[in-house]
Amino acid sequence: MKAIQKLNSANISGKYICVGLDTDPKKIPEHLSSFKEPVVEFNKRIIEATKDSAAAYKLNLAFYESEGIIGLENLERTLSFIPENIFTIADGKRGDIGNTSNLYARSIFDHFKFDAATLNPYMGQDSLEPFLSYSDKFNFILVLTSNPGSTDFQKQKLQNGAYLYQEVIKKIQSWNKNSNCGIVFGATNQTELKENLNLIDGLPLLIPGVGAQGGSLQDVTNLLFSEKKFSFLINVSRGIIQKSLGEDFIDAAKNELAVLNKIIAQNLNPKK
Amino acid sequence: MKAIQKLNSANISGKYICVGLDTDPKKIPEHLSSFKEPVVEFNKRIIEATKDSAAAYKLNLAFYESEGIIGLENLERTLSFIPENIFTIADGKRGDIGNTSNLYARSIFDHFKFDAATLNPYMGQDSLEPFLSYSDKFNFILVLTSNPGSTDFQKQKLQNGAYLYQEVIKKIQSWNKNSNCGIVFGATNQTELKENLNLIDGLPLLIPGVGAQGGSLQDVTNLLFSEKKFSFLINVSRGIIQKSLGEDFIDAAKNELAVLNKIIAQNLNPKK
Repeated sequence: MKAIQKLNSANISGKYICVGLDTDPKKIPEHLSSFKEPVVEFNKRIIEATKDSAAAYKLNLAFYESEGIIGLENLERTLSFIPENIFTIADGKRGDIGNTSNLYARSIFDHFKFDAATLNPYMGQDSLEPFLSYSDKFNFILVLTSNPGSTDFQKQKLQNGAYLYQEVIKKIQSWNKNSNCGIVFGATNQTELKENLNLIDGLPLLIPGVGAQGGSLQDVTNLLFSEKKFSFLINVSRGIIQKSLGEDFIDAAKNELAVLNKIIAQNLNPKK
Repeated sequence: MKAIQKLNSANISGKYICVGLDTDPKKIPEHLSSFKEPVVEFNKRIIEATKDSAAAYKLNLAFYESEGIIGLENLERTLSFIPENIFTIADGKRGDIGNTSNLYARSIFDHFKFDAATLNPYMGQDSLEPFLSYSDKFNFILVLTSNPGSTDFQKQKLQNGAYLYQEVIKKIQSWNKNSNCGIVFGATNQTELKENLNLIDGLPLLIPGVGAQGGSLQDVTNLLFSEKKFSFLINVSRGIIQKSLGEDFIDAAKNELAVLNKIIAQNLNPKK
């Protein structure tokens, strides 16, 4: 099965929230500290509580790599708790010369068996090709990010009249031979999302920046449901997994996901 | 001691070659296969053979991360063989939103204790700030890379008349409050290097692309010595560590480094 089919199946059943397992060892509820690997225990319980209503899980690699060898073990064990039919994203924002990018792709797709990766386009086509050549996997390429620094380069206007981020979208369309490219578009850039739906032309979207970073779930889903049918994922990390830092963190995460899903359902079927 | 002082000391004593320890487990001489960790044994011997005449060592993180837990152990052990006074670079081309970038910086600078990191500027200032805030460490930010894809975005012309890569240089100048920023500029872009020496204005340079990728050591060093005094490193990876894949790999690596250093010495002191 192609990775994208998992994402599409989730969307078809009304699931659009990607739970970001950016698990900070310093922000794990106190009562889990007696476990040998609190991060693994935490992730296991979050996954158990959310797997029926989450569309996907995104693991930011930095949160695991920064813990060294234990972190990589925690990453592997966390992945083992995610049901096979749920879409998984390795968020590493990779991009390097070909022989190096090839190693990153092998690690993410072959070793850890993620369905998808996030990539940085700055070094151009050949730096992403090793990822794009995995025709059964999926790739979300950074276009317009949710952070303040997105104005530094992404929103620079080119002599051809397009903004750099628009040029990136155009190039991605031409690289998308295996239909396995999508884009990262921050929810904090609502106006730009609206203005570029034609240019994006159905490329699946990974949308961070809702919640802690200030984007509105209501507005984004409203837009994407009304204009054209897009496959998309709204990523929420801290808003779900750190909703409570107490003993009730499982219920808090589950309830928050239900609240978000309710907003989505109301936008998807406004008459209900 | 600030990291940059190690680089400057190397340059002062005529050393400009950075040995890239991009060690491919599949390209290690046969006779090392009986060792428990051939990568570590290989790196140990390469370091022993080159440490007196190398200016720095660059470890491409992908080559270690892609081997999982063993790879990280190999990375740590490799670093332990590099003398304290030699400049070390973690080549990971990182860049992410603040809280994530912070984790990458801690891993590279605090945990592994590298002197420097390579960074990707696409996400802008706040994505790099966690690295730049380490005032004793050093950061090489991608400007114009040595691969074919550098034309896709880096060489796009902006409406303000500058190429994107030139805009990146300008922004780096304004971010360089701690004097700990340098740039990555591929040796395959000789003309652009020459035309931008004033704009670069003394930012230390990390120059890949000599050798396997086609750039000329003679031309690059000639230019940098003649126009203005720059701190710089010329990275050579496969050209040194894979010079021979046989039992003579140590001598081959040592000899190749001597050949490269001789070319540099002749350019530095043309009358000798």
